[in-house]
Amino acid sequence: MNLLPPWKDKALFTPGPLTTSLTVKQAMLRDLGSRDTEFIGIIKDIRQRLVWLGTNSDEYTTVLIQGSGTYGIEATLSSVIPPDGKLLILINGAYGHRMLKIAGVHRIHCESLIFTEDTQPDASALESALKNDPAISHVAVVHCETTTGIINPIEVYGKIVKKYKRTYIVDAMSSFGAYPVDLKACGIDYLISSSNKCIEGVPGFSFVLARRESLMVTRGFARTLSLDLLAQWEGLEGDGQFRFTPPTHAILAFRQALLELEQEGGVSARGARYYENYQITLSAMQTMGFKPYLNESLRGYIITSFYYPDHPNFHFKEFYERLSEKGHVIYPGKLTHADCFRIGHIGRLAASDVASLMAAVAETLNEMNISMPEKVEE
Amino acid sequence: MNLLPPWKDKALFTPGPLTTSLTVKQAMLRDLGSRDTEFIGIIKDIRQRLVWLGTNSDEYTTVLIQGSGTYGIEATLSSVIPPDGKLLILINGAYGHRMLKIAGVHRIHCESLIFTEDTQPDASALESALKNDPAISHVAVVHCETTTGIINPIEVYGKIVKKYKRTYIVDAMSSFGAYPVDLKACGIDYLISSSNKCIEGVPGFSFVLARRESLMVTRGFARTLSLDLLAQWEGLEGDGQFRFTPPTHAILAFRQALLELEQEGGVSARGARYYENYQITLSAMQTMGFKPYLNESLRGYIITSFYYPDHPNFHFKEFYERLSEKGHVIYPGKLTHADCFRIGHIGRLAASDVASLMAAVAETLNEMNISMPEKVEE
Repeated sequence: MNLLPPWKDKALFTPGPLTTSLTVKQAMLRDLGSRDTEFIGIIKDIRQRLVWLGTNSDEYTTVLIQGSGTYGIEATLSSVIPPDGKLLILINGAYGHRMLKIAGVHRIHCESLIFTEDTQPDASALESALKNDPAISHVAVVHCETTTGIINPIEVYGKIVKKYKRTYIVDAMSSFGAYPVDLKACGIDYLISSSNKCIEGVPGFSFVLARRESLMVTRGFARTLSLDLLAQWEGLEGDGQFRFTPPTHAILAFRQALLELEQEGGVSARGARYYENYQITLSAMQTMGFKPYLNESLRGYIITSFYYPDHPNFHFKEFYERLSEKGHVIYPGKLTHADCFRIGHIGRLAASDVASLMAAVAETLNEMNISMPEKVEE
Repeated sequence: MNLLPPWKDKALFTPGPLTTSLTVKQAMLRDLGSRDTEFIGIIKDIRQRLVWLGTNSDEYTTVLIQGSGTYGIEATLSSVIPPDGKLLILINGAYGHRMLKIAGVHRIHCESLIFTEDTQPDASALESALKNDPAISHVAVVHCETTTGIINPIEVYGKIVKKYKRTYIVDAMSSFGAYPVDLKACGIDYLISSSNKCIEGVPGFSFVLARRESLMVTRGFARTLSLDLLAQWEGLEGDGQFRFTPPTHAILAFRQALLELEQEGGVSARGARYYENYQITLSAMQTMGFKPYLNESLRGYIITSFYYPDHPNFHFKEFYERLSEKGHVIYPGKLTHADCFRIGHIGRLAASDVASLMAAVAETLNEMNISMPEKVEE
């Protein structure tokens, strides 16, 4: 039987699900019992490796949560904030707003500091909020706002949150595994990410790196059964099993993905590859006349937002479909006040894949009869 | 590159995750963008096929929910019962109790009729409850209680629920795809099942077959964001996409699994294969002296509970591990008042696999020096 895929899938220049290695996908060619010894060992191994990616302190533990990244965010917010707690959210994009929405659904007392999508939340605003409102018990922020690709200074915020002895929650969905992070130095109590981002696994679950001491005092706070963070941790620590059926195949793929992350040289090497993807993209796009949405100092190497070209022939849907026909999937924008599209730099993509996308963009502009100024200066 | 797995996985005689076909797993050797046209088409196809498995009426629709089966149950209970609604649960096992727990977490007004694990919930008790308590707005029951393997008469209950014009929720987690069901004839408003049961996909999501008219009046009832059934449906009906990252690979496997269910001859052919697995198991186990927990008339062909042998040498852990070493994974019991273990009959298992398990059981009894009366009469 020929098991090699007869197709070559389109390259995914998106924020996820991403292009993954064939070996990661092949790891799914097995059926393991979710309560059998081998699988329990794999869960344990994954949980330990995840902690090591974020810290060398033994104060942290990992909880895996079935579902998408948003499930991990909702699990955290709905499980760790006491009934009389108050959450402050720093917002500069759609994923910050999503946390606000989750808090609202669960009637969690909540305040937000909202900034424009092209600026980082202001640390001094955070500090005055904490100084003036002792009721704020928890602070949450997004590390890489995938809305724009902006990187927020989570360590700066963390030092302030810790100065005022509050609990600190970081949505590191699309950055964890590609940006080095030291949970302890950042004062992070809960960091949430997902299986299908920079670890380069397939979608199926999210994970929460939690400071054990913080998690231990949350008994009775959970507002759901499935997304109960402490109960899930107790299951994983107790008999080593998930409380409810885990995505066994996605977990097998993830273990392989963690091994491949190590083989690549860890977080710094992976970050370097993504950075190169970003550089090639940026340089070629600017040469073609595209303008990035964010100022250079705010841009990360996860995903980049580009303005639509100011040309009557440009229609995003057509642009997207022509690129897709050529084997490249880019991503629409998610901005409130600007017409942008996004190009992701993460996943199992090398410089040659990016070069190939850039050639396709040039060809597509040509097909669509779009000419732009030769080079846009920043 | 050799893509054939170098191993033969253990056969899973469990309630899931199950043994699946190699072709189902191979369908996961792809990376599709979750918002790209091809994937949107696959979701649409799956949702339509699922409706056809349960009804030929166009009154029904399907909602896919990331996560395990329990997520689907929690999504339904926490999304469709109004704040002033009242849920009645018919309970004869652990999964009925789990619904009670979910209702409790969400502070849903709830009552239960609890029966012993070896009896079906009494239809006349249901009828008097509905007659005497007009506040009861919703009734929930489990079709196959995996705790014991008992099959509950969902059509009988459904006719009573409809007579009193209440909303009817059926947990068909481990029966859907193997037991024929006519949603309309049973008066079912919501039926919940999961990707890794009798459809023989891999774990990653659950699905809810919903009567559109019932779902449409639930706006504002959802108590979570991730598990909001109506919002999820609106996403799937609107742009055809999941609101949050779907388990793309598990969904590709599921599409293949649905095709293979059709190729096998549909629900009745699949049920017949499972029934044969059950018959071979039962007959061989009884010959060896094992006694099934349930009376014959109550037993289904999904999973069977057997009493521990009354022999001083029997220790379940050792029995389990010896079978596992021989390549067969069975399942522990979950009963409150009896020492039992379980053997599942579902998944990509043929008569020869079951015969092989039975030979391994005989060998294991021999190794453990356990002799039993030759045959237990029912």
